[in-house]
Amino acid sequence: MQKLFEYNWQVRKEWLDWCESVSMEELMKQRTGGIGYILPTLYHIVAVEYGWICGGIQGRAITIPSFEEVASVQQIKAFSDACHVELAPFIYDWNDSLEERIMMDITDEGEEEAHACGEVMRHVIAHEIHHIGQLSVWSRELGRKPVSADFIGRGVFNSIR
Amino acid sequence: MQKLFEYNWQVRKEWLDWCESVSMEELMKQRTGGIGYILPTLYHIVAVEYGWICGGIQGRAITIPSFEEVASVQQIKAFSDACHVELAPFIYDWNDSLEERIMMDITDEGEEEAHACGEVMRHVIAHEIHHIGQLSVWSRELGRKPVSADFIGRGVFNSIR
Repeated sequence: MQKLFEYNWQVRKEWLDWCESVSMEELMKQRTGGIGYILPTLYHIVAVEYGWICGGIQGRAITIPSFEEVASVQQIKAFSDACHVELAPFIYDWNDSLEERIMMDITDEGEEEAHACGEVMRHVIAHEIHHIGQLSVWSRELGRKPVSADFIGRGVFNSIR
Repeated sequence: MQKLFEYNWQVRKEWLDWCESVSMEELMKQRTGGIGYILPTLYHIVAVEYGWICGGIQGRAITIPSFEEVASVQQIKAFSDACHVELAPFIYDWNDSLEERIMMDITDEGEEEAHACGEVMRHVIAHEIHHIGQLSVWSRELGRKPVSADFIGRGVFNSIR
């Protein structure tokens, strides 16, 4: 489980670095599919991971800034780093005994929903990879090579915590 | 690990069903990013999973048809089903003792490369989710709602083998 989170963190960091060489106009240009914009997609990935892990599973009182409050590459990098500091210890402490633990979520319709923590963890993993796939298409649309999505070859597997 | 494979199999099946309501012209129209075409992307997902798991990790002598040999939605469904029958037992028998086992791969340049089996498993998982993210953009381009990418809510977590 940890290794797929590490992969996502590494890929996200590379996309944020990639953003530094792209104009703000391109990062905020409306595009087809997904969230519809490059920079808000990266913000959304961070916010969703932080919301589910720290707010949802851990049940902590957290504050998630609006996109407008962190609407630059540097600010989203700082937002991502700050969330990472808060949530990484939980990810590294994860163990199989937490798989079936139940967490309660409030849906957009205001209803309570129960989820197994293992289900939420995998949801967060798949969520980021899916949105990164969308960024790869948009990247080609603006004539840029996307960040590699390969898991193999980026040293995650033998990474030291 | 198994649950992320089950998620991918379920999502892939839904995309293949989705393809049945889209014209072959759209499925084979060149698009920006990724593999560049909808149907060949689904073929590629199946071929890569089968190649890495049965050919790579298991080291079996396998034959992967070319795209031209299975170039219809029905044939790719059958190809996916046939691969699933062959590889699912290995996925369900997966256990942590296999994580660090080494498998040898031949790169496109003809060089031998060693990978931990756990690394290959995660590579295959991330590979499919990434390409499905690209399909979601192309789906919106042709005015169609994409298959849901949510892990939560599709019953994978409490699925019975």
